[in-house]
Amino acid sequence: MNATPLVGAIEAGGTKMVCAVGRTWREVRDTPAHVVPTTTPDETMARVLDWFAARHAVTPLSALGVASFGPIDFAADAIATTTPKELWRGFRWRQAIATRFGDLPLGYDTDTNAAGVAEWRWGAARGRDVSVYVTVGTGIGGGIVVNGVPIHGLLHPEFGHMFVPRQAGDDFVGTCPSHGDCLEGLASGEAIARRWRRAGRELDANHPAWELESSYLALAVVNIVMITSPQIVVLGGGVMGVEGLIERVRHKVRTAVNGYLPRAELSTNVDRYLVTPGLGTYSGVVGAFALAQRALDAGPAST
Amino acid sequence: MNATPLVGAIEAGGTKMVCAVGRTWREVRDTPAHVVPTTTPDETMARVLDWFAARHAVTPLSALGVASFGPIDFAADAIATTTPKELWRGFRWRQAIATRFGDLPLGYDTDTNAAGVAEWRWGAARGRDVSVYVTVGTGIGGGIVVNGVPIHGLLHPEFGHMFVPRQAGDDFVGTCPSHGDCLEGLASGEAIARRWRRAGRELDANHPAWELESSYLALAVVNIVMITSPQIVVLGGGVMGVEGLIERVRHKVRTAVNGYLPRAELSTNVDRYLVTPGLGTYSGVVGAFALAQRALDAGPAST
Repeated sequence: MNATPLVGAIEAGGTKMVCAVGRTWREVRDTPAHVVPTTTPDETMARVLDWFAARHAVTPLSALGVASFGPIDFAADAIATTTPKELWRGFRWRQAIATRFGDLPLGYDTDTNAAGVAEWRWGAARGRDVSVYVTVGTGIGGGIVVNGVPIHGLLHPEFGHMFVPRQAGDDFVGTCPSHGDCLEGLASGEAIARRWRRAGRELDANHPAWELESSYLALAVVNIVMITSPQIVVLGGGVMGVEGLIERVRHKVRTAVNGYLPRAELSTNVDRYLVTPGLGTYSGVVGAFALAQRALDAGPAST
Repeated sequence: MNATPLVGAIEAGGTKMVCAVGRTWREVRDTPAHVVPTTTPDETMARVLDWFAARHAVTPLSALGVASFGPIDFAADAIATTTPKELWRGFRWRQAIATRFGDLPLGYDTDTNAAGVAEWRWGAARGRDVSVYVTVGTGIGGGIVVNGVPIHGLLHPEFGHMFVPRQAGDDFVGTCPSHGDCLEGLASGEAIARRWRRAGRELDANHPAWELESSYLALAVVNIVMITSPQIVVLGGGVMGVEGLIERVRHKVRTAVNGYLPRAELSTNVDRYLVTPGLGTYSGVVGAFALAQRALDAGPAST
């Protein structure tokens, strides 16, 4: 009756690993996930793999998918040595998973590419030729999905590290270890916390932080739109959960574009163009599920 | 002996229309082109179409390709009403060409998308999954080619209208009618001329203009790289012909990326990553040729 294979999905974040199994994306979304705090690779992976091994013993998994924080150096088959998560520099997903699961088909990609694919297949970006997923959380990242396939090219997109103009009066030095005041350095959750000396979730919706934040995010969205011409932009991540923030971003994007692109999406219909994820907070883990499915189609131990 | 069809190519710029015919891209490149100044649509198109009609009378053309300035509103099948070239607002290539050539297969796209395709097929970006073509001339534009196909999405890329940080001490108001100090407003050929009150070609290679110009272009390239992750960036257009400019841009891109993307292309090998067009100044007209060929494959009057 269950001809559809069971696969495992890992949303690997800097704070926690969200682990799930399922035969369909809805099952992945609707079944309570197993959450492991992200500490050292050894400790974290032991707990993650123990959990999947226990599930595997009951019903064999046919593939695993990992939606991972980055940057990922696909040529080296490892998390890049420039990741701010120092303990995870050079970490190899394939190798770590092979220690327990041998050559079980494995798909891995960045968390944002995976989420972008999930939003394209089952969420807000369904049917679009060109769609963009942006996450604004502790860091800022994103992915571009062209005809269902995330762009990799040289490596993968790193939206957070674009440069945008400073807002007048803002002299915050920025938090990015590599670039100082790149977008992530000015507008990530970490930047909010350091700029205002309080976590974003402690700042109420009328705090000036959000006026500034929406200005930077709007500039980032305009740059993404001018460079990649997406048919929809999905804005996810914890920071985007702040009440009223997406509305401010929409308004500022519309003002900044100033009618130059002759499309209702950037004027009257901007509320249907800059949207929250159709999969809510599940884009990442459902994206990992999509990677597992793709790996299964591709055969053993494929990226 | 000549089974390969003869097609026509138009590189439609705001200053001039470059018209050519050929059976191969090399023939298009190597045969002296017919150049018509861009004035009113009626006058310009009469001269352009007369020339192609004369060629057609000798050897029938099988298709036409147009690499046009933009923005192009593909949904309206017309040049967008927001183009700064006021006389050409709402101009319809298909309709104009049909008056003389009926349903001859026609391909049209932006000049930069066309040039990007030409560079991918025959120039500096051959074989890349993801490549970017940027032109810095009177205006600034660009295209992204993914597996040989230019991205359109909502409309088409408009690189020139991204926003980048101001350089310290630069208080030039910017020239963009829609955005003021977007990239094009700060760093296009027109911006250079208005900022320094002399055309760029009159400024020698040591003029401070080029230090500033290279800073803005480097920020633009970094944004393009962080957002789209291309395997190569081709920098064309008249401004890029300035001696030493591309070397300055390379140096500043490398400095700005600061090792964050773990790729030799952005450090030791940046001279092979940020490159001039493989087709020299012919990317646009050869791109128009590529569009004509594609239209021929697709049949009558296809975009």
